[in-house]
Amino acid sequence: MAQAATATPAEDRAMLRALEIAATGGVPLGPNPRVGCVLLADDGTEVAEGFHRGAGTPHAEAAALAQAGDAARGATAVVTLEPCNHTGRTGPCAEALIRAGVRRVVFAQTDPNPVARGGAGTLLAAGIEVVDGLREAESRALNRAWTFALEYGRPYVTWKFATSLDGRSAAADGTSRWVSSIPSRQDTHRLRGECDVMLVGTNTVEVDDPELTVRDAVDEPAAHQPLRVVMGARDLDPGRRIFNDRAETLHLRTRDPHQALAELHGLGRRHVFLEGGPTLAAAFLQAGLVDEVVTYVAPLLLGAGRSAVGDLGIDTITDALHLAVSDVTVLGTGAETNVRLTMTPATPVVDQPWAREQPRPDKEQ
Amino acid sequence: MAQAATATPAEDRAMLRALEIAATGGVPLGPNPRVGCVLLADDGTEVAEGFHRGAGTPHAEAAALAQAGDAARGATAVVTLEPCNHTGRTGPCAEALIRAGVRRVVFAQTDPNPVARGGAGTLLAAGIEVVDGLREAESRALNRAWTFALEYGRPYVTWKFATSLDGRSAAADGTSRWVSSIPSRQDTHRLRGECDVMLVGTNTVEVDDPELTVRDAVDEPAAHQPLRVVMGARDLDPGRRIFNDRAETLHLRTRDPHQALAELHGLGRRHVFLEGGPTLAAAFLQAGLVDEVVTYVAPLLLGAGRSAVGDLGIDTITDALHLAVSDVTVLGTGAETNVRLTMTPATPVVDQPWAREQPRPDKEQ
Repeated sequence: MAQAATATPAEDRAMLRALEIAATGGVPLGPNPRVGCVLLADDGTEVAEGFHRGAGTPHAEAAALAQAGDAARGATAVVTLEPCNHTGRTGPCAEALIRAGVRRVVFAQTDPNPVARGGAGTLLAAGIEVVDGLREAESRALNRAWTFALEYGRPYVTWKFATSLDGRSAAADGTSRWVSSIPSRQDTHRLRGECDVMLVGTNTVEVDDPELTVRDAVDEPAAHQPLRVVMGARDLDPGRRIFNDRAETLHLRTRDPHQALAELHGLGRRHVFLEGGPTLAAAFLQAGLVDEVVTYVAPLLLGAGRSAVGDLGIDTITDALHLAVSDVTVLGTGAETNVRLTMTPATPVVDQPWAREQPRPDKEQ
Repeated sequence: MAQAATATPAEDRAMLRALEIAATGGVPLGPNPRVGCVLLADDGTEVAEGFHRGAGTPHAEAAALAQAGDAARGATAVVTLEPCNHTGRTGPCAEALIRAGVRRVVFAQTDPNPVARGGAGTLLAAGIEVVDGLREAESRALNRAWTFALEYGRPYVTWKFATSLDGRSAAADGTSRWVSSIPSRQDTHRLRGECDVMLVGTNTVEVDDPELTVRDAVDEPAAHQPLRVVMGARDLDPGRRIFNDRAETLHLRTRDPHQALAELHGLGRRHVFLEGGPTLAAAFLQAGLVDEVVTYVAPLLLGAGRSAVGDLGIDTITDALHLAVSDVTVLGTGAETNVRLTMTPATPVVDQPWAREQPRPDKEQ
């Protein structure tokens, strides 16, 4: 796909701008990625720009073309993602760019979506210059969960847990309020809001009765709420808070993490925020289905109580599940300090047995 | 004690220099604090300086006076600690300053040592101007363990433990090698070297057989070794590594943390590095005898195994032992990352019942 032609400095600046406006598109609470597009005239000046605002709204290219009008003729389109090739709720962007008379297209990331990809080929066939791979890493990072989900055929899973210094999530009598500090809880709501599913097990619903919504700093529900999902075979009391009307809720009647993720992927969900208790977390960990771990460590000691993580079947230190730390952030101060560690499995998921053995649900549809 | 007279800018600069040279005196591996002294002429220029290099060597004031010779007459002595009033291995510094004809003395911290204090009064009685409290906090910080030990009548206790993310110090089969990373282990040796006692229980000696020495980056033993102390009633095999000839070792035949600290304080030890297992740590915590906690959190999960902290008798979350975080440092990168948290009890030790109820061993001597 890569052309001999390389991007110009003006195109690189335009790509940085496209990434910038793409990010303002908000967090995708649907199946679509964040995309930005900048149209450049021959002299490298900007003609128009646009970004995708979520499912059902115009794609970034369409938004930019609409703003440009006739000025799009002969322009260069700089896009963060390969223009799509399929007709969804909006027409294919590759065709729209051809019709508008765009001369050249520079994009960052090849579309990993098997249904939408192929736009570059369509553009080339129409005689348009195509350059790909410019700032690809930045575009992938912008839509890391979406990219992962399309490439691996299942949602990206972020597992979050709060723990005391000595690995406890609750005291011996089950009380756990304020293991995490106020800054940590606000931070958790921010992370929840970046996902499109919040997942717990039936046991957590019965024991802790969480509402599982995204709330802001003054405890008001956010406008966009991820899907609330509870998994497990057991029947649940419909009076539980997770079933209130503040967000949608789905009860998946399975205990199998693979099955749960396959169903959620089929529903277009790309990023699962796993907030279950130690047993559900252990099931996902043992299945190799945790892609990111966010841990809030609170500076307190309990000495006994509920373990933050359930039995993983690890007997000896060499079998420990090792994680690579990508970020350490201190939230709050003094006794209200929590330390947030963000980690990924030190062994890439793709190298784990499950990744080869499991069916890819999206390929079967 | 405080005089109406305040310190001049030149004296403040001299105090910062005195603190600086005091710190180069190395870590006290004995009963003495780090002290620096700068002698100033009338015009604020430095005449001489000196610092204390450890037990048996001249005090900072004596070192500076020796360097100054006759130039000390009419000078101002700027000292980080109140000049001592007692005859130890060296004569009293207050007398030496008077004999040398010093006109004025500015010091930072009042001597907390009941045996040595009173130098300021002796100086005043001799007609010397005295200013105290200049940069007092900095001097206390420089000798925080020594200051604490003299004020509270027992050694300052730093408890160090390494833990997995889920609060385990070893896997189910007891293996624990590499729970902490190489950078953490080197960091631990540095911290050990800042203490004058390393303390473990008999169980740790029997199970883990640690050598308990301070070693450098290439695993060679450091020149100065803290006293190795094992506490517990049990007899121990003299072939254990802790009894080798690389450092001194003491077996305290007690299980009582108060008793152990009283004995160590009587021996002039001021800073205990507690490296015992979960049971010994729990005993010190429950007695309110942990003044600082240093935790190395390793990014790995075990799901089961030996708890990093033993039962503390805490049943409910409101009784959790809360710590205030004073420092968070990331050591290493990726899967070799460890996060070091340095903490102090959120409730000051002085407010805890034991602090009022326990005898002050040094007052009885």
